[in-house]
Amino acid sequence: MADTDLQDRDTAHDGEERVEERVQGEGVQFDEENRLRPEFVRAVRESLRDDNEDSTYDLVEPLHPADIADLFELFDREDRAYLANAITDLMSSEVVAELNDYVREDMVEALPAAAVAEIVEQLETDDAVQLIEDLDEGDQRAILAEVEPEDRAAIESALTYPEESAGRLMQRELVAVPESMTVGDLIDYLRAADDLTTEFWEVFVVDHRFHPVGTCQLSWVLRCPRDVALTDVMKRDQTLIPTDMDQEEVALRFQKYALISAAVVDDSGRLVGQLTVDDITHIIAEEAGEDALLLSGAGEGDINEPLRDAYSSRVRWLIANLGTAVVASAIIAYFGAAIEKLVALAVLMPIVASIGGNAGTQTMAVTVRAIAMNQLTRSNTKRLVLRELKVALMNGATIAVLIGAATAVLFTPELGAVIAAAMVINIIISGMAGVLVPVAFDRMNQDPAVASSVFVTMITDSMGFFAFLGLAVASGLVSL
Amino acid sequence: MADTDLQDRDTAHDGEERVEERVQGEGVQFDEENRLRPEFVRAVRESLRDDNEDSTYDLVEPLHPADIADLFELFDREDRAYLANAITDLMSSEVVAELNDYVREDMVEALPAAAVAEIVEQLETDDAVQLIEDLDEGDQRAILAEVEPEDRAAIESALTYPEESAGRLMQRELVAVPESMTVGDLIDYLRAADDLTTEFWEVFVVDHRFHPVGTCQLSWVLRCPRDVALTDVMKRDQTLIPTDMDQEEVALRFQKYALISAAVVDDSGRLVGQLTVDDITHIIAEEAGEDALLLSGAGEGDINEPLRDAYSSRVRWLIANLGTAVVASAIIAYFGAAIEKLVALAVLMPIVASIGGNAGTQTMAVTVRAIAMNQLTRSNTKRLVLRELKVALMNGATIAVLIGAATAVLFTPELGAVIAAAMVINIIISGMAGVLVPVAFDRMNQDPAVASSVFVTMITDSMGFFAFLGLAVASGLVSL
Repeated sequence: MADTDLQDRDTAHDGEERVEERVQGEGVQFDEENRLRPEFVRAVRESLRDDNEDSTYDLVEPLHPADIADLFELFDREDRAYLANAITDLMSSEVVAELNDYVREDMVEALPAAAVAEIVEQLETDDAVQLIEDLDEGDQRAILAEVEPEDRAAIESALTYPEESAGRLMQRELVAVPESMTVGDLIDYLRAADDLTTEFWEVFVVDHRFHPVGTCQLSWVLRCPRDVALTDVMKRDQTLIPTDMDQEEVALRFQKYALISAAVVDDSGRLVGQLTVDDITHIIAEEAGEDALLLSGAGEGDINEPLRDAYSSRVRWLIANLGTAVVASAIIAYFGAAIEKLVALAVLMPIVASIGGNAGTQTMAVTVRAIAMNQLTRSNTKRLVLRELKVALMNGATIAVLIGAATAVLFTPELGAVIAAAMVINIIISGMAGVLVPVAFDRMNQDPAVASSVFVTMITDSMGFFAFLGLAVASGLVSL
Repeated sequence: MADTDLQDRDTAHDGEERVEERVQGEGVQFDEENRLRPEFVRAVRESLRDDNEDSTYDLVEPLHPADIADLFELFDREDRAYLANAITDLMSSEVVAELNDYVREDMVEALPAAAVAEIVEQLETDDAVQLIEDLDEGDQRAILAEVEPEDRAAIESALTYPEESAGRLMQRELVAVPESMTVGDLIDYLRAADDLTTEFWEVFVVDHRFHPVGTCQLSWVLRCPRDVALTDVMKRDQTLIPTDMDQEEVALRFQKYALISAAVVDDSGRLVGQLTVDDITHIIAEEAGEDALLLSGAGEGDINEPLRDAYSSRVRWLIANLGTAVVASAIIAYFGAAIEKLVALAVLMPIVASIGGNAGTQTMAVTVRAIAMNQLTRSNTKRLVLRELKVALMNGATIAVLIGAATAVLFTPELGAVIAAAMVINIIISGMAGVLVPVAFDRMNQDPAVASSVFVTMITDSMGFFAFLGLAVASGLVSL
């Protein structure tokens, strides 16, 4: 892949005529939160519809590639194609790399194979792979047939690694040098080599088997005299990422060890690629944000996801919850005779179930987050369970007093006592379910964010109705 | 602040005796997900309780500072103090910087001011600020009194910026050079200057007013001949971060523009500090993950949060939801006579409310995430509303058929028709509430993740009961 050419960049800023300084993400196009203003988006759309390509180009040209990508996402599907035509010059590899997955896939499917191949050749391996990995095999083959053999080989090899693995994500472009070099040797090598990438933050030092033995931050290299050996500058403690490591795990390592780049090694320990943090920040945000979506059963939850995907992931969840709701209904049905005699039970029972559900959701969100951040292990699970039990007791007591007193006044003191007791029981059960269900899924190596909700909801709903109606009968308040 | 000393690091790896290569996060101490094994944690705890400081030290010494920090978090409060005593040599500034906020605050409060001051002097400004910012003012003053005047001034100045702002987060240590330098000048300057930080990834080029005019990636500097002017190597398009920018906004800029470091400027545009991505990855994860916690009303949701804080944030939420549940109960009470006549209504009504609640939560999670990621603006809100309306219609139709048919068989066809119609109505209302409530909060400049849930739940519950019971009466199935 052709990487950013140093010479090109120099020329662009060369000569007497100074390019004006430009601050990214500021100016009339943006609101205070760095989002493209609706007025600006509308202006671009109108100039597109007027078929005024020059004015469209002038409007879009000052934007950073990431903002051009945002512009595409804000447009409707049909307008995206018009925009792409109007600003072909500005459709750099950076724009393509920054596009939302769904929007990119949509646009790539609309383009002829040769045009996609042209874009692919400009991209780094990782971005090229991202561009075509979701296409069906026929389309992939058609595009790869148009790509230069060397680039094709790199992409095909990346595609052999599992999806969302380090092997897929890595860049093959990196700087690796032998242990024998000095700082001076390295600088001379970097200046002389023509085809090196310019996107690197650390230099990997490798042995004769091409196994990484250390990493040099460029700032250390720059601060040392030429005659210092690299082995004296490099850091030997390093994080090596195996090609088959999952992206979630990669993201956690980058966070935990504050990495800027990391060496990716194959099964035999050979250096085969690098990961840089700028590609990982997206994944960190994605992985950290997906729990809220998973817990609510919203699937991928991206607003650009096709309608049929959104429907199928969400309806599956609603059907599962229909099942749990039916279980709760069966419990109510069992107490039908009691409700007929005392309709106040029907009025109050949703309160017990609803508050229990909320308490369970709170504990579950905390637990799922702690598991995702690797904060919760067998070493501290018992401590967390005890802590949540204490919180549940305090919450249960508070809510029980409030609802018990109100019920005693509005209905009868006996009913107040029953609902208060049921509330304490349900909040404790819910709190415990909120911890134990996700922990159990984690121990079974299942993602706790995916399935915990259904189980916790079933427990909190059923137990809410059962505790309240059961206590009403058991206390002799009403008979079955 | 004293930064990592190049000379020290060199010496450590110097000489004939080779330090063994060490791969971070691998080895007998770790499980396959890079968490400390319970057996290892137990071994350390036991050697602590046996008062065997040497064996404790030997166990902990091979760990990376981030893993030592994890070890502290896994321990109970009392064990943490023992551990800190046993491994004082290993309690580096990195360990302190990596500690969970609550655990760090807890430990700092337990130490005498002079000991904290000693740690503070080893830290970079940003980490030092983090260490003392949550202490009360008296403790802060006592510690700062023990710190060298220069460091004290830097910390005090950082504390004048609002919490979670760029001014608080930034490091003051950076490399800034005048526009007149060449690549060679820069290298000579970096080699000669003794007191420069070694933690930098880009060099900021400034004008005579100390305003940043461009940024040089170190890789570009290393690849250019000595006589090239820095103004020809540097990138002029840059992201400048004002000192008062909120950390959430900072995190989004780093992600969007794939930044490694960024210049922080004061009101007059002077360069006053830098932010580097390794400090921002934590914030990206925190900001992306907090929505799941906020939506569930779990407050900060950290498992190390003190009990009283967890109780107070969660109980407030439960009380708010008690209010919404009471509204729903009032609706049921209004239909009490109908329920007395047909107890099947009481059995089935929670199903309508529960599925509506789930559908609303799904849409709300998607909307809140899109707002947090700056994907949703006035330009595409209408498109999202239409899309969610379509999904709601499809979901509503599917669920209505299922529950309608089952009810028709188990109860009566008339009741089946009523529950099917109520389900469609409630899923549509819930879906719309899930979009419109967070969008409304966002337009009022309120965080949609904080308060949307209560309102959406109130709408989905009340409307679920109202639609079902109301339709049962309106259709003549049962009279009030």
